[in-house]
Amino acid sequence: MPLARGGTRTEHSTLNRVARYPREMEASGGFDDKRAPVQNANGRTDCRLANAVTAEVETTSMTRVTVWNENVHEQEHEAVADLYPDGIHGAIASALAERGFDTETATLQEPEHGLTEDVLAETDVLTWWGHAAHDQVDDEVVSRVKERVLEGMGLIVLHSGHYSKIFRELMGTTCSLKWREAAETERLWVVEPGHPIADGVEEYIELPETEMYGERFDIPAPDTLVFNSWFEGGEVFRSGCCYRRGAGRIFYFRPGHETYPIYHNEAIQQVLANACDWAAAGNGPEPSFGNADPIEAIDESDDRSVH
Amino acid sequence: MPLARGGTRTEHSTLNRVARYPREMEASGGFDDKRAPVQNANGRTDCRLANAVTAEVETTSMTRVTVWNENVHEQEHEAVADLYPDGIHGAIASALAERGFDTETATLQEPEHGLTEDVLAETDVLTWWGHAAHDQVDDEVVSRVKERVLEGMGLIVLHSGHYSKIFRELMGTTCSLKWREAAETERLWVVEPGHPIADGVEEYIELPETEMYGERFDIPAPDTLVFNSWFEGGEVFRSGCCYRRGAGRIFYFRPGHETYPIYHNEAIQQVLANACDWAAAGNGPEPSFGNADPIEAIDESDDRSVH
Amino acid sequence: MPLARGGTRTEHSTLNRVARYPREMEASGGFDDKRAPVQNANGRTDCRLANAVTAEVETTSMTRVTVWNENVHEQEHEAVADLYPDGIHGAIASALAERGFDTETATLQEPEHGLTEDVLAETDVLTWWGHAAHDQVDDEVVSRVKERVLEGMGLIVLHSGHYSKIFRELMGTTCSLKWREAAETERLWVVEPGHPIADGVEEYIELPETEMYGERFDIPAPDTLVFNSWFEGGEVFRSGCCYRRGAGRIFYFRPGHETYPIYHNEAIQQVLANACDWAAAGNGPEPSFGNADPIEAIDESDDRSVH
Amino acid sequence: MPLARGGTRTEHSTLNRVARYPREMEASGGFDDKRAPVQNANGRTDCRLANAVTAEVETTSMTRVTVWNENVHEQEHEAVADLYPDGIHGAIASALAERGFDTETATLQEPEHGLTEDVLAETDVLTWWGHAAHDQVDDEVVSRVKERVLEGMGLIVLHSGHYSKIFRELMGTTCSLKWREAAETERLWVVEPGHPIADGVEEYIELPETEMYGERFDIPAPDTLVFNSWFEGGEVFRSGCCYRRGAGRIFYFRPGHETYPIYHNEAIQQVLANACDWAAAGNGPEPSFGNADPIEAIDESDDRSVH
Repeated sequence: MPLARGGTRTEHSTLNRVARYPREMEASGGFDDKRAPVQNANGRTDCRLANAVTAEVETTSMTRVTVWNENVHEQEHEAVADLYPDGIHGAIASALAERGFDTETATLQEPEHGLTEDVLAETDVLTWWGHAAHDQVDDEVVSRVKERVLEGMGLIVLHSGHYSKIFRELMGTTCSLKWREAAETERLWVVEPGHPIADGVEEYIELPETEMYGERFDIPAPDTLVFNSWFEGGEVFRSGCCYRRGAGRIFYFRPGHETYPIYHNEAIQQVLANACDWAAAGNGPEPSFGNADPIEAIDESDDRSVH
Repeated sequence: MPLARGGTRTEHSTLNRVARYPREMEASGGFDDKRAPVQNANGRTDCRLANAVTAEVETTSMTRVTVWNENVHEQEHEAVADLYPDGIHGAIASALAERGFDTETATLQEPEHGLTEDVLAETDVLTWWGHAAHDQVDDEVVSRVKERVLEGMGLIVLHSGHYSKIFRELMGTTCSLKWREAAETERLWVVEPGHPIADGVEEYIELPETEMYGERFDIPAPDTLVFNSWFEGGEVFRSGCCYRRGAGRIFYFRPGHETYPIYHNEAIQQVLANACDWAAAGNGPEPSFGNADPIEAIDESDDRSVH
Repeated sequence: MPLARGGTRTEHSTLNRVARYPREMEASGGFDDKRAPVQNANGRTDCRLANAVTAEVETTSMTRVTVWNENVHEQEHEAVADLYPDGIHGAIASALAERGFDTETATLQEPEHGLTEDVLAETDVLTWWGHAAHDQVDDEVVSRVKERVLEGMGLIVLHSGHYSKIFRELMGTTCSLKWREAAETERLWVVEPGHPIADGVEEYIELPETEMYGERFDIPAPDTLVFNSWFEGGEVFRSGCCYRRGAGRIFYFRPGHETYPIYHNEAIQQVLANACDWAAAGNGPEPSFGNADPIEAIDESDDRSVH
Repeated sequence: MPLARGGTRTEHSTLNRVARYPREMEASGGFDDKRAPVQNANGRTDCRLANAVTAEVETTSMTRVTVWNENVHEQEHEAVADLYPDGIHGAIASALAERGFDTETATLQEPEHGLTEDVLAETDVLTWWGHAAHDQVDDEVVSRVKERVLEGMGLIVLHSGHYSKIFRELMGTTCSLKWREAAETERLWVVEPGHPIADGVEEYIELPETEMYGERFDIPAPDTLVFNSWFEGGEVFRSGCCYRRGAGRIFYFRPGHETYPIYHNEAIQQVLANACDWAAAGNGPEPSFGNADPIEAIDESDDRSVH
């Protein structure tokens, strides 16, 4: 029986805080008795286990990631197709699925670029790869994605996606940078080892062949800088940048290229998985906006308003 | 002899670090030996002249502030016109001029809203007041202002300007909030007393009659939060927010309203002056973007590029 | 079979990223076959389950929280003892245990204040409540706690703990503030609804009777401000503040008092649970410090060093 | 005629916003009558002039920088003495004096390390160089400096000063890092071109021979990151870091070494001057702390306080 995408934001958030079980548990009727609440030696019930197995069983779900790719280089260049036979989106989706995410892909060529209202409504985290066709992305789709990010959907912007409409609209700056394609060494140093996006990563990730991106990177200063890159040719780059916008979390991750096998690198895959975990929507309050009654008793007799 | 707006970014930045000279000095060939105060064409003595140090004479200038206002309420409501007989822009410009700034005003009704390429090129800091006519601001002018901010022009966004096109484009979020017009008390607490925008201000500024703005304010977390407001009706609001975008500095300042005499308040005027000082463009490097040669000697023989 | 506190930082961090199982699994040799990798309806193996059940079985555990309290008011004042019959530590530990944490308590009166090397080594998150006896906390214990925080242990500092040695040492500032005990209303507004510490919380938490804390709060600007408080008497306060220090995450949470029933409030308990989840140590790289060989081939013949 | 150090914090702040006069103006009796308050053509007195010329004449002054150095290597190693015949402190003080600062020096060997209450009271910005003798700095002096920083004195921490008591106490972390002495190339990239500390600097500063400092640098994430360094041997480093602590501004600047001629480099000198300008104390409110009466009328009859 296929898994239907039925999670809601509230349900998902539960799994962030309690435990993560595969959705087939829901389909199969839940865990068996052996997973029922247990007591430890001094009689204390282990609440988390109890929560996970009983009260929460029907509401938890895997994090749903939609992997978007413009999918142009793969169609036009044999070298790229050889490197990514299932497309860059296929490589990323596969790496994430292997790490426990519920993944779907979407590409520029699909109707509404595969990013319909329904798809976005069922997406916890969207990853974005684009390069040659930024201007072919429909403005309406960009607005739709932006709205969902501000509502709480996570967004992982990859490599040349720095110049996508969606990233530039969310940042408010040009997002320009320096670049060079010379298959040179990049070393991504972890500058914030306590950040969950650095989980399971060594002190640095070394990539022997990369496109260089160099500062000045015209972005707002990130809320948290996780990676800082060194390039063989002499440049540095803020290569792992966290932002909060609205209720959404955004991570820009520099590595990735159409002609270098970056997305086959295990450490890069690990960071992508960490980022999807970090960016998945929470369960915070939905803010209310607009005209508001006072909470405290105040004199409301003023009538000077001109509108 | 009229004052020509002849300063350049480089010239201005000098004055930030050394001293501030009136612009006529450049035209007139510099100060005389006695360093005596001089008058400009309309007879106003420029106090900054007193500060003159000879070596810097030909390069420095006053900070040039352009005060923009949509100027709609003033035309339509007598109560507003009574409160601000010279318009909100007139009140702000006058307060800034008294504090040593070289001010001009511009309004929605002027051609290109008074924000031509030439005007912006000669503006160090732009202040923005809008409320009823945000959607009447031409998109091309918004783009022009945004470009100038990213190049280094300061931007002070006032009160209901939170919902202007320019602020929302630079922030990347909805900039929504709660509001109420009940002439209630606001108390702006200084939370960062070491910030220059708090210079000369007491521990808090109390405004007896204000429109309430309440959290959640849907903005990116400010780089620095300077003021934090308390409202009689029970809300709080981040009311003084600093941002860097591109090479520009942006300050959002909450107080200000068309039917309350906020801009006649001296402490508010002081903050506006401080903000203009803080936001005035510096003299940092102009970043270069795009394809870049390596600085270090590296192997550039890779030919896998597909574009 | 008793739960032994046997987790290590590495083990624990796995659970943050993969799944959370009770620690008795480790002792019992792992899950039985029924929990082996399963396939979903369309035949795809669910990788997360596979990971969790096989490779990771022996390494995961619940988040271990040690709840520290100076436990002085409870001994000296009947009113406090009546409000918190198990001590403030007992109330907090109980609330966290109900929400799935593996909790222990420790108090000032115990040898080494209950914070031995062993206890800290097995603590993922430490919560800290102190007020009347900050100066009785041994400097050596403070150093030990600080070291563990920098290594990655989470720290939740509560209410009057703002003035504890450990918080002031980690912040580097005085951590002074204004205060008043008048049983007045506090309203904690969520200013960052997308932050996990705001999960499950309404737009604001209202506490009818609190001690007031007011700005200026002399702390470094928080990395993330989650809550912003309004007080009946006219003040505001940054009441939920996130920091990263070393590999550790620190959360300061203002509410809480010895004579008001703050820790019996469900929303407050929810925030405490969220904060413990957020602050639990990750699995990032352990940084290496000191003299380092070059990674790239460089000329190392320089002999000018004077030490 | 010697210059007396007579400025106060309040007095000094005026000069930040208005202009900077050499102190000999004070000694010579100030400006002559021709510079007295004047009126402009429409009869309005130019307030800034009035301020500057009358009330402030005897109180404004140049920014007073005290350049501190442990001054050990210079005494023990001829190579260092040859490079810095007046000591590192002498080289820095000279560079700052040439750029318009009122400089004094102080060293470890002086009574109270030259940092008496009086000296600190008359210091707007303190620069700190130490390396071999951090542990010889008296704790009382460290406390005194820290207190002054929190009150508003600027602090510029240089190179190996990262490991000084004062920096570590203000940061709350270990401030550890990687290092190597191999006279390798460093390139400091400007990542925040709109920040005043980058004024007059090119896109990067290249230093042909430096000691390497590498990440992980165990500091709190800086409020603003201005420089990001590339090293020949393969490392990166956050090399220009701004912080606010209390009312004080702190800048850590990486370059600088006892056996490389870093402080003779003009771009480095420019950054030091910019940093002293940026860090100079403002004129914000002095916060009040402790028990506070309510501002609003509230019921204060609660008598549950236990202290």
